[in-house]
Amino acid sequence: MADTSGAPPEAGLLDRARLLTAPGLDASVVRALERTTGRPAEHTPGSVPEGPVLYVGDTLPDALRDGRLVWFHSVYAGTDALLAAGPWPDGALLTRTVGRMGERIAQYVLGWMLAECQSVPEHTAQHARGVWHRLPSTLVAGDTAVVHGTGHIGSAVAALLRACSVRTVGVRRTPGGPLPGFDRVVAVGGAEEAEELAAARWVVSTLPLTGATEGFFGGRRFAAMRGASFVNVGRGASVDLDALEAALRDGTVRRAVLDVLPDEPPGPDDRVWRLPRTVVTSHSAGLTADEDVVTDFEACWDAVAQGRTPALAVDTGRGY
Amino acid sequence: MADTSGAPPEAGLLDRARLLTAPGLDASVVRALERTTGRPAEHTPGSVPEGPVLYVGDTLPDALRDGRLVWFHSVYAGTDALLAAGPWPDGALLTRTVGRMGERIAQYVLGWMLAECQSVPEHTAQHARGVWHRLPSTLVAGDTAVVHGTGHIGSAVAALLRACSVRTVGVRRTPGGPLPGFDRVVAVGGAEEAEELAAARWVVSTLPLTGATEGFFGGRRFAAMRGASFVNVGRGASVDLDALEAALRDGTVRRAVLDVLPDEPPGPDDRVWRLPRTVVTSHSAGLTADEDVVTDFEACWDAVAQGRTPALAVDTGRGY
Repeated sequence: MADTSGAPPEAGLLDRARLLTAPGLDASVVRALERTTGRPAEHTPGSVPEGPVLYVGDTLPDALRDGRLVWFHSVYAGTDALLAAGPWPDGALLTRTVGRMGERIAQYVLGWMLAECQSVPEHTAQHARGVWHRLPSTLVAGDTAVVHGTGHIGSAVAALLRACSVRTVGVRRTPGGPLPGFDRVVAVGGAEEAEELAAARWVVSTLPLTGATEGFFGGRRFAAMRGASFVNVGRGASVDLDALEAALRDGTVRRAVLDVLPDEPPGPDDRVWRLPRTVVTSHSAGLTADEDVVTDFEACWDAVAQGRTPALAVDTGRGY
Repeated sequence: MADTSGAPPEAGLLDRARLLTAPGLDASVVRALERTTGRPAEHTPGSVPEGPVLYVGDTLPDALRDGRLVWFHSVYAGTDALLAAGPWPDGALLTRTVGRMGERIAQYVLGWMLAECQSVPEHTAQHARGVWHRLPSTLVAGDTAVVHGTGHIGSAVAALLRACSVRTVGVRRTPGGPLPGFDRVVAVGGAEEAEELAAARWVVSTLPLTGATEGFFGGRRFAAMRGASFVNVGRGASVDLDALEAALRDGTVRRAVLDVLPDEPPGPDDRVWRLPRTVVTSHSAGLTADEDVVTDFEACWDAVAQGRTPALAVDTGRGY
């Protein structure tokens, strides 16, 4: 069985590893990586050189899916595509960039919630036509928001919503006690989740894509809602678009804001453009900045140097 | 000199006062006022009956600008129009409805700030055209917001902005120490205000309209800004629109969101529709709800019954 524990590479191996960086990486990031690791970076458009390799980038070149890969640091937080593209090389450490993603995604979620409550798109459209007509402005205070996923991102979302006096309910896979940021935590799939989905004014998904979350938001879950607005900042394939469309037509889902889609980018004829009361944004909620890559890689490097598993290591078996 | 202290009316006078309510008041509000005061409400479209009067409404009928008015409770928070319409009857108590206005206005301000940072109008427009193109999404964290007015509303705005890690600077007329919600408080009109206007990414006005605030945001203040977005949730006449237009054309003001205008509603040919990078909303940021009128009137009634000045009393000399 493959080692999926995220254990740091052997020091001797890492010392000898070449630093390879993906072609798209900003020059300032590459310079910072060279400083941190104390070796020159090599770009690898075609052939991959001999010896152990430390790779920093977005996708893993096929030529590196072998025993030479010691450590891959992802410039993104989501590693599902990376892991789905082929078997993960045995014993290779996988770390990722999270940066200020929790904070970024929380502001995205709150921004779209308040945009709905403050009629931002409607006011903008009225303004363009030179019309001054009183439009509703409602408080989110007192609303219930159900947040699927109670990790780093889900907790950051919940904490910010609470600042607006929203009641926050976390849905998680593994049972356990209270969690910071959440007024209540319920188990996935049970009666409590259904009860909270019925009470929710907002349902926010921060779920990663794993075998267990593909098509997670399907007919049953959407049917449990009673007019909630649905915001997806997790992964597109966790939503069954047929079921979402039916729920939007029924009104069990009031509105949808989708930052992620099963297929990105969607073409001009994609069905998502025809979903009622929906806005699709451009996978922009949790973009990592160049400085995030540098900061997070350095934290991983320091942990590895001390023989610890980095906090940003991915369990390649579980997928997050 | 008129008494402007907000002292409660004499008990004997209030006992005998008729309860008059403005025609537009919701029936549920009228019933609640009758319960609280223990007397029937009378509507007064035309003539006003004899005797002392307690009036609840939006505007004061001219026939009541005399010694018979014991107490006027405003269903709105802003009382400038009421006070500007004529001399305030000697000794009459003026109270107002604030309700959850601080919370409402804070969510309006944050909603429009996040809408700008998350490109909400741009994403909405892209969606309408079936276009998926990466648009910027920025954090408000670390930005400086200068909030003019440090009362109930300004403090609520600042406290909410701090939940998004915004640095908040309050500008106030009367000197004093630190205030909750604000990282810094500066005096109006000095070098410190100019310095903070230059540092600001956001300038938010919550100022009431008084003799001292008419045209307050003029050429000098706008010229001190360096690309701040300006949000006005105070009063329209506190802004010199010529100066704002010049600042928007220069870029010293990046964008403007105006919930209030000198003349409302603006006609289809009003100049505000032609201001660059501006959205006008429909004086909707701090609408009071019916339950707010009832709750706030009851609090005033209780204070008066105990011979105290209600916290929601307006100093009719100062104007707020």
